[in-house]
Amino acid sequence: MSGLHFWFSIGSTYSYLTVMRIEKVARDAGVDVEWRPFSVRKIMQEMNNIPFTEKPTKMAYMWRDIERRAAGYGVPCQVPVPYPLAQFDLANRVAVLGREEGWCAAYVQATYRRWFQWGQAAGSSPNLEDSLQEIGLDPVEVIARAESEETGRAYGAATDKARQLDIFGAPTFIANGEMFWGDDRLEDALAWAKAPG
Amino acid sequence: MSGLHFWFSIGSTYSYLTVMRIEKVARDAGVDVEWRPFSVRKIMQEMNNIPFTEKPTKMAYMWRDIERRAAGYGVPCQVPVPYPLAQFDLANRVAVLGREEGWCAAYVQATYRRWFQWGQAAGSSPNLEDSLQEIGLDPVEVIARAESEETGRAYGAATDKARQLDIFGAPTFIANGEMFWGDDRLEDALAWAKAPG
Repeated sequence: MSGLHFWFSIGSTYSYLTVMRIEKVARDAGVDVEWRPFSVRKIMQEMNNIPFTEKPTKMAYMWRDIERRAAGYGVPCQVPVPYPLAQFDLANRVAVLGREEGWCAAYVQATYRRWFQWGQAAGSSPNLEDSLQEIGLDPVEVIARAESEETGRAYGAATDKARQLDIFGAPTFIANGEMFWGDDRLEDALAWAKAPG
Repeated sequence: MSGLHFWFSIGSTYSYLTVMRIEKVARDAGVDVEWRPFSVRKIMQEMNNIPFTEKPTKMAYMWRDIERRAAGYGVPCQVPVPYPLAQFDLANRVAVLGREEGWCAAYVQATYRRWFQWGQAAGSSPNLEDSLQEIGLDPVEVIARAESEETGRAYGAATDKARQLDIFGAPTFIANGEMFWGDDRLEDALAWAKAPG
């Protein structure tokens, strides 16, 4: 089976669209997806990127564009949502732990749904605890492990790997060594995973 | 007939894709296109936008992405091309004049073709002169008028209008009052021009 690596950070707004649809479209295409959490915030800071929040007209467009595209995909979406995330790193450390233990996708879908459908910030209460409970995990125990040095090291290593791949944004897809950036490139990336070029 | 306004600057790289295909896809969709040159550079400077040129990994991705998408559209494309343009404003002043006189699209297509297929910078020699000659105009006479105060005022007014519409990048499409940014949103914009929402 062909494979696609889905690099993302919880906190990326456009990644909501991908999180809600990637499993289905990849399955339909016969492509395996590996979920790869990392810190896009750290990489963007290193690149001296000016966040959307300082560009009001661009940010207003972003919400409208996400809303329109969500409607096109038939995905519920109530924007704007709390942004940027106050607990960006905790949200993603939990995802990194989930990747080790096989519940990454389920957690990320649950937390994005609460963020973009109910307006509850990912990484914070009650979203974080409720999302973990929804997928059958003990929030207190999981959060303690997410905050451990070990998870911190894995999170740093994931971000180092992303930087090494020249990833500069999220969502990013890697298919047969080719990079695609943005939810609107998901179909192109799936096609490349099946037949490069 | 439904209408679409295509806001662009010669100098925007992704606009190459749009310039090469918009007339055909709009005709197929039964939508009229109005070409609206303005200075995206001025607006991006006002927004304190950091140009691609200071972000080498992002820029490398941009060339590759344009190359892939051009291939998908069947459009010839030899990247990278000279960027940014040394004569950005002159290239666009000529387009503003062309809009007044009905040869904007023909000029922009001719100059982009030379830029992205032959590697000759738009707005500079020999691209500018040859593009004007190709569409049956006298380069010396046209360039003199493009450099006039009158054309300068029209160029400034076009950019003011773009700013007033909250345009922050190029290409941008306006259809029934709705804004779409990026060549990859052209199909969405055409659909909106025919049936909003």
